[in-house]
Amino acid sequence: MSNKDNTQHEVLISVRWNDGALDLLDQRLLPEETVYLRLTTPQEVWEAIRELKVRGAPAIGIAAAYGVVLGVQRNGQASGRELAEEVRRQAEYLATSRPTAVNLFWALDRMKARSEALAKAGLPAEEAADALLQEARQIQAEDEQTNRLIGEHALTLFQDGMGVLTHCNAGGLATAKYGTALAPFYLALEQGIRLKVFADETRPVLQGARLTAFELQRAGVDVTLITDSMAGHVMSKGWVQAVIVGTDRVAANGDVANKIGTYSVAVLAKAHNIPFYVACPLSTIDLSTPTGADIPIEERSPEEITAGFGRQTAPHGVAVYNPAFDVTPHELVTAIITEKGIVKPSYSENLPKLFNR
Amino acid sequence: MSNKDNTQHEVLISVRWNDGALDLLDQRLLPEETVYLRLTTPQEVWEAIRELKVRGAPAIGIAAAYGVVLGVQRNGQASGRELAEEVRRQAEYLATSRPTAVNLFWALDRMKARSEALAKAGLPAEEAADALLQEARQIQAEDEQTNRLIGEHALTLFQDGMGVLTHCNAGGLATAKYGTALAPFYLALEQGIRLKVFADETRPVLQGARLTAFELQRAGVDVTLITDSMAGHVMSKGWVQAVIVGTDRVAANGDVANKIGTYSVAVLAKAHNIPFYVACPLSTIDLSTPTGADIPIEERSPEEITAGFGRQTAPHGVAVYNPAFDVTPHELVTAIITEKGIVKPSYSENLPKLFNR
Repeated sequence: MSNKDNTQHEVLISVRWNDGALDLLDQRLLPEETVYLRLTTPQEVWEAIRELKVRGAPAIGIAAAYGVVLGVQRNGQASGRELAEEVRRQAEYLATSRPTAVNLFWALDRMKARSEALAKAGLPAEEAADALLQEARQIQAEDEQTNRLIGEHALTLFQDGMGVLTHCNAGGLATAKYGTALAPFYLALEQGIRLKVFADETRPVLQGARLTAFELQRAGVDVTLITDSMAGHVMSKGWVQAVIVGTDRVAANGDVANKIGTYSVAVLAKAHNIPFYVACPLSTIDLSTPTGADIPIEERSPEEITAGFGRQTAPHGVAVYNPAFDVTPHELVTAIITEKGIVKPSYSENLPKLFNR
Repeated sequence: MSNKDNTQHEVLISVRWNDGALDLLDQRLLPEETVYLRLTTPQEVWEAIRELKVRGAPAIGIAAAYGVVLGVQRNGQASGRELAEEVRRQAEYLATSRPTAVNLFWALDRMKARSEALAKAGLPAEEAADALLQEARQIQAEDEQTNRLIGEHALTLFQDGMGVLTHCNAGGLATAKYGTALAPFYLALEQGIRLKVFADETRPVLQGARLTAFELQRAGVDVTLITDSMAGHVMSKGWVQAVIVGTDRVAANGDVANKIGTYSVAVLAKAHNIPFYVACPLSTIDLSTPTGADIPIEERSPEEITAGFGRQTAPHGVAVYNPAFDVTPHELVTAIITEKGIVKPSYSENLPKLFNR
């Protein structure tokens, strides 16, 4: 193994309000360049979301909420009612930036509802604008708090000195802070608990190499990058005591949809008697989806595999299968870790209880 | 899946003697360009081996044998004895092109022994030179025959309509023709047996994408390229009825060293009740190595993972683990397929029998 890490350690925050403007980490330039854009208009936020400068559902929602704030700052609205009208217009505009992003709509709806309530309460425009900034900050703070709770619960499953493998990126860059699956690694660092993280590079789009390895290295976490094909080998060497991944959707029976390759990792973990954990907020658990078979699997462009990084690495015209996700059946999932605690099987019995509390 | 294959189908031969010169497929340019170099001197063969224009142990040995022939063609030696001296000089020179290639030395030793025997028999130089060309052709023909036999034995394990997954490249480009693990695919095509091949791209160096997908597509085999992380997913869909791979070394107990990621594929195959086959010539079985634990695992440069596609795809200085091979324990190997037939467990009992026949 080789490690030539001389960088200053810091936990990168992808979205932050800074003195009347939105500072946004341009994730398209990672891992080669760490550049913060300073956005001052909703148009700039719209473009940043559209052009994937910001990615990750929670981070997109937070950025959009601040985009609404930028749209009503110093615009001289006469009343809270006028301001609420402007919020509605800006939110409708920002919602067109990425029409499939559920968190985007959720954050914009929340900003609209808040401005509506402020108008009804008769607040003057200037006070209402301040309150809207507080609402956007609150959305960000709640996401950070959710992730911190997920991380604290997850960390109870890990001990000092353990090796933990992760796949893809469920990290701080995609959220307000900490991420979901990566949250325990940040908290372990804060608490002086030494974990040795293995990051699968996660072909075809290399989120593990470009984002997970990047943000963990930057924070000072002991992370080792491997190819996806090495996961079994490092497990066989006894270097991995747990696996933790994020998820795009959890079905009611505990089946887990996540980045392609997650299923292979789960099978390998089981074959080596290694626990396989899934970290996610309650908002990712969809009780209206009965099983993983009901989750559609998006197929993506062959070029991601044949010519992904500036070079043609496969013959032109070759047949390619490129599913974006796979489904890990609940039998392979040791536990699901949420902000409300750790859920173990039977998932179809225990997942609904989370929502009843 | 997508397939836009409009190429003319042909089985590419990487090394071939052609009217007094050696035509060599420049494998460094694959898959983007298919260029044959025309080599007329031992110096050019030396450079081709050194610069990896030719790769694969058998193909290197064959190229070197023809290199010796090039060194004694039309050189006006007065006698078979003089010619044998020249063969010895050329062989010693060619042996320095890649000092760790066992097949290279084996082929050169054979050429030296042949010229020595010809000199002792008192053959004139011209006749001896002709006989040396025949010897080089014989080395190539024997390799082709070995691979054809491996392919025929392997094909008895496959039925029309089956899906077969392979990892890395144990193909025709590395050998005289057909390859080892890929041999049954070429023979199936000749015999009208339809197999659906899945080729793992095989990170980090992408031999599956650059070579296996390339040569099978070129030959007209139904091949679909996937990332290594998708192997489990395609197995779970019921698309794979067998796995077949090559190997760098088989230990006496049947443990198999092969390209990194092979072990993961073997574990996944077992979890899905899919047979896992290893194809190799007898020369790859090393009874003097007791178990896989006795096979050293080479670690390669981190840049293969962090900057393999012509772009930096991981943070600078990140820790990387990059083993070139892994060991698949014999318990996961359903059968080993050689030119002398199919060997099943117990390998420690049955492998030695191959050499006693």
